Amino acid sequence: MSRKQLVNGRADTALDAEDRGLAYGDGLFETVAVYRGRLCLWDYHMDRLLDGARRLGLPEPPLATLKEEARFLTERVDRGVLKVVYTRGSSEGRGYLPPSRPIPTRILTLYNPPAIPPERWHGVDVRLCRTRISIQPRLAGIKHLNRLEQVMARSEWRDTAIAEGLMLDADGLIVEGTATNVFAVRSRTLLTPPLTHAGVAGVMRRWVLEQAEGFGLRVEERGFYPEELRQMDELFLTNSLIGLWPVRSVAGTQLPVGPVSRGYLEQMAGRGLTPLVGRSEIPGERR
Amino acid sequence: MSRKQLVNGRADTALDAEDRGLAYGDGLFETVAVYRGRLCLWDYHMDRLLDGARRLGLPEPPLATLKEEARFLTERVDRGVLKVVYTRGSSEGRGYLPPSRPIPTRILTLYNPPAIPPERWHGVDVRLCRTRISIQPRLAGIKHLNRLEQVMARSEWRDTAIAEGLMLDADGLIVEGTATNVFAVRSRTLLTPPLTHAGVAGVMRRWVLEQAEGFGLRVEERGFYPEELRQMDELFLTNSLIGLWPVRSVAGTQLPVGPVSRGYLEQMAGRGLTPLVGRSEIPGERR
Repeated sequence: MSRKQLVNGRADTALDAEDRGLAYGDGLFETVAVYRGRLCLWDYHMDRLLDGARRLGLPEPPLATLKEEARFLTERVDRGVLKVVYTRGSSEGRGYLPPSRPIPTRILTLYNPPAIPPERWHGVDVRLCRTRISIQPRLAGIKHLNRLEQVMARSEWRDTAIAEGLMLDADGLIVEGTATNVFAVRSRTLLTPPLTHAGVAGVMRRWVLEQAEGFGLRVEERGFYPEELRQMDELFLTNSLIGLWPVRSVAGTQLPVGPVSRGYLEQMAGRGLTPLVGRSEIPGERR
Repeated sequence: MSRKQLVNGRADTALDAEDRGLAYGDGLFETVAVYRGRLCLWDYHMDRLLDGARRLGLPEPPLATLKEEARFLTERVDRGVLKVVYTRGSSEGRGYLPPSRPIPTRILTLYNPPAIPPERWHGVDVRLCRTRISIQPRLAGIKHLNRLEQVMARSEWRDTAIAEGLMLDADGLIVEGTATNVFAVRSRTLLTPPLTHAGVAGVMRRWVLEQAEGFGLRVEERGFYPEELRQMDELFLTNSLIGLWPVRSVAGTQLPVGPVSRGYLEQMAGRGLTPLVGRSEIPGERR
């Protein structure tokens, strides 16, 4: 596996084993699509990183340095994925109490883009996970390193015919996929679960919400139950890499792949928002 | 700071920056008291590590190897703390899905014992944390690496007069301290919150529960509200290092330091369960 990595600005693949990122998951991360040397939606990623740092009480991320290092790793990269990890650094000894003057750790790693079957952009089959997402308003929305719930949920299946799993909260409301945000369309309303009590505020989710008006869609942030899915006109999943996958079935319930999913994919392809979405990823065109 | 460390059996202080322990908190840890070359309550620690590995779907921890490495680091150590971290190892690329054949990482680190004011064993003042513990039965009881809630709760105060903070669940029931389990005594009943929906099953908690009958105490695992504390005869906190701290106040509400706390501390001192508890740590003796 090719690997280009910077740890605190140095070409390295090792980390202090006492980093609080490891000890407690005390940090944040971003997964940035790289396309034709561009860092896709970089400002949105940095907005979320800033918000996360503020919420966790981490020192403000050094945005200029991060961008410089990100560019260094991706300058001539046609298609890739850049992961940015930002932690509270090493502890002065053990214990949950953060050091009063933490020296954060930043790790930037460049990966090849994942190999994903192209038919996924024409509609995916999705399951409902047994692992629930816990309710924690203090951490909701940010992309922190405490991801065991997602690991447990994603461990529930290895069948590659299932592209993603939806996770419910304790009340049974859909919150998100293990690695995606979820949207439903119903009578020209774009529905997506609120992220005030659980979930990650995806950068592609933000972009999709910002474009909604241009598609003549009203936005409503509310959760919905799996039983409501059959009433939806469309369902789709988003993240920074895949862009958007229309959902054609959830736990056996069929759903139509519709014009809103297609419209968003056209926009994503046109703007080059991720290296994985081109013309052939638009349903109805060259299947 | 003195530091003796083994990473996968090698004297090292570095970790692969792609370890899933860092990426997702995908692993477990134990904090073992070391006293006169002994690994205190080692079997209890390994029981919990085994249980955690089973629950997370990690390969079974290599107990013989861990013990050998632990002994290597602690053989001539009079008083210390050994931290054992056990993760799912490095990912094959990114993504929540665990590798089908993970190669776990083990990190053993020896620390000096923390410097704790001796009067803490005669009674501590405790606060109620604003950060709540989320409800997650899939992870309850095990000592996993997703500890942001504890970090957030412990970040709420730096006043050293406050020894610990109690954390409540969404219903307002006390679950545990940020780094301790909590017990109350009422009319010869030993009360402690159940750990089926949140919290860590501390090794000292287990020991305290096992000794209860010898003290003529009936055990009841149930949560209690902060408002109930004034009705308690005693309240105390436990963990593998401190042994036991009697609580003399919670958020200003005074509580008596009583015979059950004293009895347990006598037993801990007599058996050498932690290097931090000797005769002078028993309330009423040589204050």
